[in-house]
Amino acid sequence: MPIELYELVGADASRPFSPHCWKARLALRHKGLDFATVPVAFTQVPEIEGGATKIVPLLRDGDRLVADSFAIAEHLEATRPDAPTLFAGEGGRRLSRFVESWTFRTVHPAIVGLAILDIHAMLAPQDQAYFRQNREARYGKSLEAVAQEGRDGLPALRASLEPVRALLAGQAFLGGEAPLFADHILFGAFQWMRVVSPVALLAGDDPVHAWFERCLDLYGGEGRSLPAAAG
Amino acid sequence: MPIELYELVGADASRPFSPHCWKARLALRHKGLDFATVPVAFTQVPEIEGGATKIVPLLRDGDRLVADSFAIAEHLEATRPDAPTLFAGEGGRRLSRFVESWTFRTVHPAIVGLAILDIHAMLAPQDQAYFRQNREARYGKSLEAVAQEGRDGLPALRASLEPVRALLAGQAFLGGEAPLFADHILFGAFQWMRVVSPVALLAGDDPVHAWFERCLDLYGGEGRSLPAAAG
Repeated sequence: MPIELYELVGADASRPFSPHCWKARLALRHKGLDFATVPVAFTQVPEIEGGATKIVPLLRDGDRLVADSFAIAEHLEATRPDAPTLFAGEGGRRLSRFVESWTFRTVHPAIVGLAILDIHAMLAPQDQAYFRQNREARYGKSLEAVAQEGRDGLPALRASLEPVRALLAGQAFLGGEAPLFADHILFGAFQWMRVVSPVALLAGDDPVHAWFERCLDLYGGEGRSLPAAAG
Repeated sequence: MPIELYELVGADASRPFSPHCWKARLALRHKGLDFATVPVAFTQVPEIEGGATKIVPLLRDGDRLVADSFAIAEHLEATRPDAPTLFAGEGGRRLSRFVESWTFRTVHPAIVGLAILDIHAMLAPQDQAYFRQNREARYGKSLEAVAQEGRDGLPALRASLEPVRALLAGQAFLGGEAPLFADHILFGAFQWMRVVSPVALLAGDDPVHAWFERCLDLYGGEGRSLPAAAG
């Protein structure tokens, strides 16, 4: 039975954009697994697999269903222990949660601020209505107000990456000389931005940019298989 | 041959304050090791162990000398593999570097800004001269200017801890249910502040405060063995 990955898309089903789905996709490739992707729009999520999940990515692996990118990585690590490791041990699994927490609270809000109208624009009409209602309730303000506040956030975002920048001065990946799921976690955020927005998040001479390019090259160029958003 | 840890002190040799030395101390206790501490003032560092190091902590472990807290943790992990683990595997060791990089670039500068005059005040006269010259060259401004700029940094520091706060909502330590060296890394910063300054870095109802209290309790209350700075 093939592995299937349900991934979030907008009006164009060929452009999955969710950071979480990209994390799962790279984790699958990291383990050397083949899989089929199933594009899902926001408003279709409740219908997939008989209402199995409210969130994507959702992984079908034989008779197992696993939702949430971190849970998917844990599932793959547990069920494919002989394939390249995603965590390199229990400490790596634990501290990947810190990388996740930091990425969620530092990088993701800045991307939301910079790209929320781009994300809205790429959705199909019924998903645009859902997205506006859901996100305006979440943030307590209009999408336009979120974008207004986030428009000037690029310098602060770049500054907030200093801990990553410093680390990458001495090594190729967060995981060391080879990537771990921790790399996929941060990659997901930058790939999200790359797919939805023409704004360059990183300066060309930034070591974080060089790291992102290395990540795009991983697993036969999995991340690069999708062209960047047109300007 | 007993283990010796050279630790930075000010005018009062009983109050080691360096965050890096506290990391090493907790790593030693984590491994269940007994050791003697050797207090060293800033200007004495070049003289210890025949000029073996420019930095403390310096660990003497039999005929081995190891400088730098992270290197000390790695040394202890390699030489005491059967004692409680500091990294829980190679991934944990790698991602502890991210925790370190984040702590250095987020928490440490804020503490420097808030406490640099407290640190200066607790040094012996000859160390005060060294510290002023060294740090004013490093920061490109007077200690007083650093303090002026840092004085209002408490809200931003507390906000920057959000990734830790969120993680600790679901677990006792960064390492999970038990501490890892990653906990010691962040603990070192807060213990530094606790030893040098009467300013409360964390609100009493902050989950990060509760975590710090748990860390102070570890290993028979090692961190609590030194009273907090008097107000």
